[in-house]
Formats: sequence, C-alpha cells, structure tokens
Amino acid sequence: MRIGVAQINSTVGDLEGNLSLAIDAYDQLVGQGTDLIVYPELFLSGYPPRDLLNKEKFLDDIDCQLQKFAQLTGPTPALIGFPEKSQGTKPATFNSAAWCMEGKVIQVFRKRLLPTYDVFDETRYFSSGECSLFIEYKEKKLAITICEDLWIMSDPRYTTNPLDEISSHKPDLLINLSASPWYLGKEQKRIDLLQNVARQASCPLIYVNSVGGNDELIFDGLSISMDATGKLVEISKAFEECIEIHDLEDSSDKDTISILNQKESLRKALVLGLRDYTMKSGFSKGLVGLSGGIDSAVTAALAVEALGSQNVIGVSLPSSISSEHSKDDAQELAEHLGIEFHTLPIQSIVDAAAHELSPLFKDFPPDVTEENIQARSRGLLLMAISNKFGALLLTTGNKSELAVGYCTLYGDMCGGLAVISDVPKTQVFSLARHINHEKVVIPTNTIDKPPSAELRPDQKDSDSLPDYEVLDAILQSYVEESRSISSIIESGFEEELVRKVVRLVDLNEYKRNQAAPGLKTTPLAFGVGRRIPIVQKYPN
Amino acid sequence: MRIGVAQINSTVGDLEGNLSLAIDAYDQLVGQGTDLIVYPELFLSGYPPRDLLNKEKFLDDIDCQLQKFAQLTGPTPALIGFPEKSQGTKPATFNSAAWCMEGKVIQVFRKRLLPTYDVFDETRYFSSGECSLFIEYKEKKLAITICEDLWIMSDPRYTTNPLDEISSHKPDLLINLSASPWYLGKEQKRIDLLQNVARQASCPLIYVNSVGGNDELIFDGLSISMDATGKLVEISKAFEECIEIHDLEDSSDKDTISILNQKESLRKALVLGLRDYTMKSGFSKGLVGLSGGIDSAVTAALAVEALGSQNVIGVSLPSSISSEHSKDDAQELAEHLGIEFHTLPIQSIVDAAAHELSPLFKDFPPDVTEENIQARSRGLLLMAISNKFGALLLTTGNKSELAVGYCTLYGDMCGGLAVISDVPKTQVFSLARHINHEKVVIPTNTIDKPPSAELRPDQKDSDSLPDYEVLDAILQSYVEESRSISSIIESGFEEELVRKVVRLVDLNEYKRNQAAPGLKTTPLAFGVGRRIPIVQKYPN
Repeated sequence: MRIGVAQINSTVGDLEGNLSLAIDAYDQLVGQGTDLIVYPELFLSGYPPRDLLNKEKFLDDIDCQLQKFAQLTGPTPALIGFPEKSQGTKPATFNSAAWCMEGKVIQVFRKRLLPTYDVFDETRYFSSGECSLFIEYKEKKLAITICEDLWIMSDPRYTTNPLDEISSHKPDLLINLSASPWYLGKEQKRIDLLQNVARQASCPLIYVNSVGGNDELIFDGLSISMDATGKLVEISKAFEECIEIHDLEDSSDKDTISILNQKESLRKALVLGLRDYTMKSGFSKGLVGLSGGIDSAVTAALAVEALGSQNVIGVSLPSSISSEHSKDDAQELAEHLGIEFHTLPIQSIVDAAAHELSPLFKDFPPDVTEENIQARSRGLLLMAISNKFGALLLTTGNKSELAVGYCTLYGDMCGGLAVISDVPKTQVFSLARHINHEKVVIPTNTIDKPPSAELRPDQKDSDSLPDYEVLDAILQSYVEESRSISSIIESGFEEELVRKVVRLVDLNEYKRNQAAPGLKTTPLAFGVGRRIPIVQKYPN
Repeated sequence: MRIGVAQINSTVGDLEGNLSLAIDAYDQLVGQGTDLIVYPELFLSGYPPRDLLNKEKFLDDIDCQLQKFAQLTGPTPALIGFPEKSQGTKPATFNSAAWCMEGKVIQVFRKRLLPTYDVFDETRYFSSGECSLFIEYKEKKLAITICEDLWIMSDPRYTTNPLDEISSHKPDLLINLSASPWYLGKEQKRIDLLQNVARQASCPLIYVNSVGGNDELIFDGLSISMDATGKLVEISKAFEECIEIHDLEDSSDKDTISILNQKESLRKALVLGLRDYTMKSGFSKGLVGLSGGIDSAVTAALAVEALGSQNVIGVSLPSSISSEHSKDDAQELAEHLGIEFHTLPIQSIVDAAAHELSPLFKDFPPDVTEENIQARSRGLLLMAISNKFGALLLTTGNKSELAVGYCTLYGDMCGGLAVISDVPKTQVFSLARHINHEKVVIPTNTIDKPPSAELRPDQKDSDSLPDYEVLDAILQSYVEESRSISSIIESGFEEELVRKVVRLVDLNEYKRNQAAPGLKTTPLAFGVGRRIPIVQKYPN
C-alpha cells in the first residue's frame, strides 16, 4: 500500500486553519496517488487542547469541521484525529480518529489507553474507547490505534493491552496516529518501541506523528513506516512538515535511513519550538537581552534561525559592574548575527532605586537585594522595549540555574518564552559549539570565559555553585529521576553538596511557578510535567 | 458512639510535624473518652502532595511515620489518611486510610473514586482501591470511605458507586475521611450531599475534613456528623482546628447548628489561606503595596488579621500621576491597621527609565509601555523591600482584572501570593464593607471612589472596562461556566462587549501563566484548576 503521510503543523484551537491544512494535504497526496491518507492524533483541534475540551461549543465546532472535511473526501480514505464529543460518558469526550471517505465519516476509532503522567492529563479529558480497532479496506484488514495504545509493553498502568487484541486478529497493517512530544533521545526510543510492536503484531506498521510547537511541547514528526520484521521502510523528516507517500511495498534498501545526531536534533527542536511559540501567538519579532554570556548568545542565535536576523533585537544592558568583555562580546555576537542592537545602561535606574530605598536600607549591608535590583532594572527596560515594539522577550535562563534558583524573578526571568530553560548548562556549552561548527557565530570568548552573572564585581558562577558537570549530574538524579539524597550520595557525590543542591531546588519552586513557559527537551522538564507543591516541607 | 474528630492542619511534606500533630490529637481525644478517632484524608503527607508522590523515598518515609503512629495507639482505634505505596500497580500508590490500634495497623482502606478534574489529578498518582470498605468494631459494622467515594450521585464519570455496595451491607456507621477544598457556597452543597448519602445508606455518618491552607487550596474543616435521616448531630467549626468529640447518640436538638454567612466565610477562608501560605513557607511578615484603592486595602486588612499588625508592612509608591486622595487613603488605612508604613516615590525611577529609553522611543507616542514602567518601578521597589526584610510580598489584584489582563506582569503582579485573585471585584467591594461592619478599617473614600489604576492622569477603570457588575457577570459565564459567546449574548449582554471581554480573557492567558499562586474561593479559579493553552486560536 501507498500511505499518504500528512505530517503537518496544526495550531491548538485554530479550527479553520487546521481544517484548511488538512484539506490541502489531502488534495496534494491524492494527486500523488495514494491508497490512504493518515493525519496525526487530535489534528483538527491541535494538541494539547487542554481545558478547551471543557467547552461544549468547542467540541461542537470540531464536529462541524470534521463533517466539512469528510464532505471533501473522495474515494481515497483519510484517517484524521479529533476530539469526539460523546454522550453518556464523563469525561464527555473521546480521543478519536475518523475514517472519512466519499463525503462521509465511515467509522470512528477511539483511543483506549489514556496517558496521565508527565505532561499528559488525558483522563482529565477523555473517556477510554471500547469500540473496534479494525476496518476492512481493499481486502486488507487494518488495525487503527492512537499514540499511547502502542506505548504499553506490559506497563502495569493499564489493565488492557490493545496490542494483544490486535495480534490475535492478524491485521495486514497497523496504523498509529500520534502526538508524541519530543525530548532528546526520544527518536531512537520510539523506533525501538515501534519495531517491537511490528514484530509482536507480525504486520507492517505506519506511524504518523505531529510536528510543530504548542506551548511547552515540541513535536518532531519523524513519521515512520516499517515492515512486519521491524525493518524501516520510510522515515519522514524531523522538525519539518512532510506531506509525502510511504510506499510499504518499496523494498529498496533503506540502510541509509538515519536520524539526526543529538546536538542537531536539539538545535532544530528549539528553533521549531521558538518559531512556533512566537508565530502562533501572533508575534513576528523576538527580543533578547545580551549579557555577553553563553545563555543569551545561544538564545539569540536560535532566535535568528527561527525568526530571521531582521526580526531579532539584541539589547546590552550594562551596569557599572559589567566587564568590558561582556559588552564587547554582546556587540560582537550581534554583529555576527546581523541583528538590530542597542545598548541601554541601567545604572541610572539602579541609582534611582537605591536613592529611594536609602531611608529604609541605610542600616543594612548590601546583599542579594541589590543584585536583584540590577536584574530587575534590566527586566524593566527589556519589557518596555517588548511593549513598545511588539517584540516577544525571550528569557535566556538554562535548566541548571532555574533548578537552583540562580536567577531573579521579575528580572532575568522576564519574558514570554524560556527558550533553553530545559537545557542544562553543560548542554548549553555543547550546543554553542555545535552552532559554531561551520562558522563562528557565538564569540569564542563567550564560550571560553568562566560563566558569571556579573551582579557583583568579579562574581563567578563557581563562587556559589559547583562545577556545572557536577551540578548537572546531581540535578539529573534529583529532578529527572526523582532519586533521594542518600541514593545520590551513594553514586559518589559529596553529601554536603548534594544536600545544598537539593535544598536549593526545593526552595526555588516558587520562582519556577512564575517562570515563563519553557520548551521541553528532556524526559522531565520544569513546567506542566512536574508538579511539586510550592509550600512543602519534605526535606528531600 | 463517641467519635473523636481530629480536624487538624497538616502541612504538605512535613512528615514529622504531621505525625506529631496526629499523636497530640490522639492523646487529647483519648483523654476525653472516645470510641474511635478519625483524621482527614492523606493527613500524614498533607494534601495535595502532588509530585512528591513520585518520589519512592517519600512513600517509604510516610510508611515509617504510619508505623510510628500505629505503635503509639492503644485500645482506642484511629483511622488516619496516608498515601500508601503499592506493589504491582501503576500508579504505585493508593489513597488510603489505616485503622490503627493496639500498636498495629489492623486494616487498610483504599479510595476507589479518584477525582481528575478541576484542581484534582488523582489518577496521575493513585490506583483505584478494590479492597473491603468494612470493618467490625464493638459489634458494629463500619463502612470506611475517602472523600470522592461519596461524591458520586450517579455521576457517569465513574462506573462503580461505593455507596451502592455500602447500602446493601447495611452498616451501622458510615465514615468519610476528606480533604475537600473550600469555595464560596461549598458548605451547604456538601451538607446537602452528605444528607442524601446518609439517607441512601440508612445509617449515621461522620465526615472529617482537613482544615488549613496548602498553596492555592483552603480546607475549611467543618467536620459533620448526622443521623440516618440526615439530621445534623454535630458540626465542627469552620476554618479552625477542632479536636473534639462528636457524640452520635446525642439526641439534643441541634436546630441551632448554622454555618457562617458567605461574607464571613470568605473573610475567614482568605485569612486562613494567607496565614498558612505565609507561615508554612517560613515567612512571618507580609508586605503590601498600598495604592489607596480597594484591592490593596482589603489585602492589607486580611494580612493584618492573618499575621498581626506588627507583621505587616504597607508601602505607598506614588508617582507624579497619583492623586492626593490616593496617598491620603493609603496612609489612613495604614493608621487604621496600625502597621508599619512607608512612602517611596517612584518618579525618579520612571524618569531614569524614560531617559535611558528615549533614544529608542523618541519617535513613538506614549502608550501602555509607559503605564507598565510605572507599575514595574513599583514592583522593583516592593521586591527590594521584600528581599531586604524577608517579608512576603502579597499581590493585590482581584479576579476581574486578572481575567481581562488589567494588570502589569512583573509590575503589580509581583508577589508570592495573590490573596484575592479569585475574588471578583464586585465581591471585593462587599468584602470591604463586611470588614468595616464593626468599625471603619478601610477608609470610606477607598470604597466609595471610582476605581482607578492611576497609570494615566484622571484614568478610571470604567474608561476601558465595563461596569464591574456587568463584567463580573460575563466573566462568571465565560470563565467559570465555560459558556460560549452566543450563549452569553442570549442571556442579555451586548454582543460587542461580550466579544471584547472574551477576547481579553483569552489574550491574557500568558499573564496568568506567570501569576503568583492565588487562593481558590470559587468553583473555578485561575491556576491549577484551569488549564487553558497559552498559545491557542479558538475564538471563543
């Protein structure tokens, strides 16, 4: 069979836009000659629609779009994901796929396994489907599944395994509509899983995934077809729309199929997430405060890739503490990137604030308060520029500093999107080098100098934080793997240090609670997928 | 039977503290002569523990605390809520209650119905219990349920109804351990429900609820006992700890049992939520920016009630636009409240920012940018005071303005807790009058003058917003009831106005995403219970 893969970028809630994309893809694929066209999970609503699903009219409007779509289909069937209003169940919605053909919705398939962990809240919204997984088409038996239905592998989370039922029916083709959020390394994990699935079901498999960014989530596409032995037949591009045919009879050798290396994958993911967040929220311009440091440099470089150099504004905001090299590095970066660049000193604002506060503060020594005033003066100016010119302020903090609270709320945390807030500092370095691998975009000095927040004279990150290699390893254990202090110490880290890092992570929940949404790049990002109480006293 | 009600205030994650409270209550109630002592749902962990439940060691530590508690019990049994680590299920936890007596855990009961809507994410954490609901004690058959188990009333959300099984077993007493978050009007709703439950089960009922604030949630206590006809036997105080006996054989006439009026309920709820958020997060002092307006006045008055006048700092931050009456009203409020009061003019900061920005802004007319600079200058100073003196900054925005974005991110939205962010403006007025009902605390002028943000000369809220009566009615329909534009217009509101309000609500999702946690007082608060995508294009 020749399967039309509609790996296209939907926008949450944009019912007209998504329908229009669906129709264009249908026409295009029919023109190329195809037996069946498959779209991603919940394509018509965009994924994740979240509490929009609680609006009854939203579901009615989706149904209307689905009928419009079905009416335009001809003899070539299309299988498209949509949230289906249900009667008599609560939640009153199914996560469904409609088989549309000859102007009608012929059959509807409903997702059975509803992920409710990490970023997923599907039992909040959906009831579990119980209807048939099968349809006969062109004398072949097709099994239709939606995302999680195949991600089971004897997970005790679920009491049923659709794959058992599918295997026993010996289908000729297994289809999966997916909206599988990307994180670093997920591509290979997903391919391995699907290969096991194909082998267990003993039939070829076609997997069509969403592509694009919606809020924190990045969908990588990378739709896959494989034969019954798990041998890859075709793989669509990652991080791009792909409207193309996967020919399951194509037996040419695909040994050359490969996925991107991790650094390139990370770069492309962030660029896609940044572009989609910006564009889908109606901005065309991005704004970055350039400190001369590596985080803002990487953020600005990604913004230029996502939005174009003409659409990125860089602003250097030196204080009396800022070193010459910081200002030079910021300017050099802006020149390399070819972006609009401004320098706005903050000292007069810092001084005015200090003057107003002096009657209150006169008997108190300087402390973190004064550091924060600098960061907040920068935030104030950047937000003013953002407001005046309608440019989305991009926050530049990385995961390591957000984890331990090495950042100022309402200061450097100001912004609409936290581009690299799920990228640990050690990875920021390797990403910077990767961005520079063809030509130097990020000044070498920015990468090579010791990281510093420059909120005190001669301050260095290493004054208050351990080496980032060590910090990131502890954070990975504590934040992503939910390991206990004692278990982390057993891995060979110094007890005092582990306790300090854990304490900082816990203490700074309140800052992260008010952080800008950040693009998810790891299995466990701060944000929607991690829900720690703000006020809590568990010591580890 | 004489039931000991342990309506006590636990703190999320404070395993030692919660255990200690549990033991104190046990000893105290045993001393009063009781047949059985009942604690709230998930008492040992605090509610809601959220992703702390993903830490294996957390569950191990809870088990350890439970064993310690059980060891201290004597012949009087205690029924206490705790998250129970499970083997072989995923999620690997049950929401359980342990029957402890004579030094041992005798039997464990597991919650069957797991709410996963609004603020609840219980299927994320818990597996549904399947074990017995019954225990024999003193020749009586007791049925044990946990919160949602009784909140069903033919809700198609659940396929089983524990109450059916309970009714068929004809128990002598039905017990419910609860952590039921409060909102305005919930008291009566809950009593009505429990009366129906008692009648359906044809047996007396004892309901023990949590009390206290944890993050956004306020638990009101108000533990209830009633006879088999639903007649109230005893009701514990609202918004306070209560360690007392409910004597189910007490047949004295309880016609005098009454619940608080709604205004008083709202006041007490906010005071409790504010106090617990502040104290449990380790602060003892609160800080409020006093504009002379009603929102900050109400917030400051609640803060004084919660923390004591000696622990509240009020700061007036006038600009050149601020009216004399604003400054006077702020000062008068501070005098009435007897709090530390400072005046810090912001104009020099605003001027410094304008000066630095002038090269960039010289060809652009003033707009919302300049208004935001004022709000952000205030935020900068307030956060400096918060940092320097370790006082928790309380945000003063109400629900109406947060809904339509009539507030400045990183400006007046700065703060650790949004005290009245779930109180619509019309309710803020009635709350202010209620606070003043015995003596004038909030200056009369503050209540009577037309609301104004004073970010432009002679600005009034009514310049850009409809009357708050109308606005709040539209917001109630749109935000809390998820009604569509057309349905709201059908209720008699002007189409253009409805569309404007809805557009503003949708547009400002990004601001609310970075807002401070706010105390929940309505059935649907912004925050954990409302999960709208930030970037989305659904038009209503």
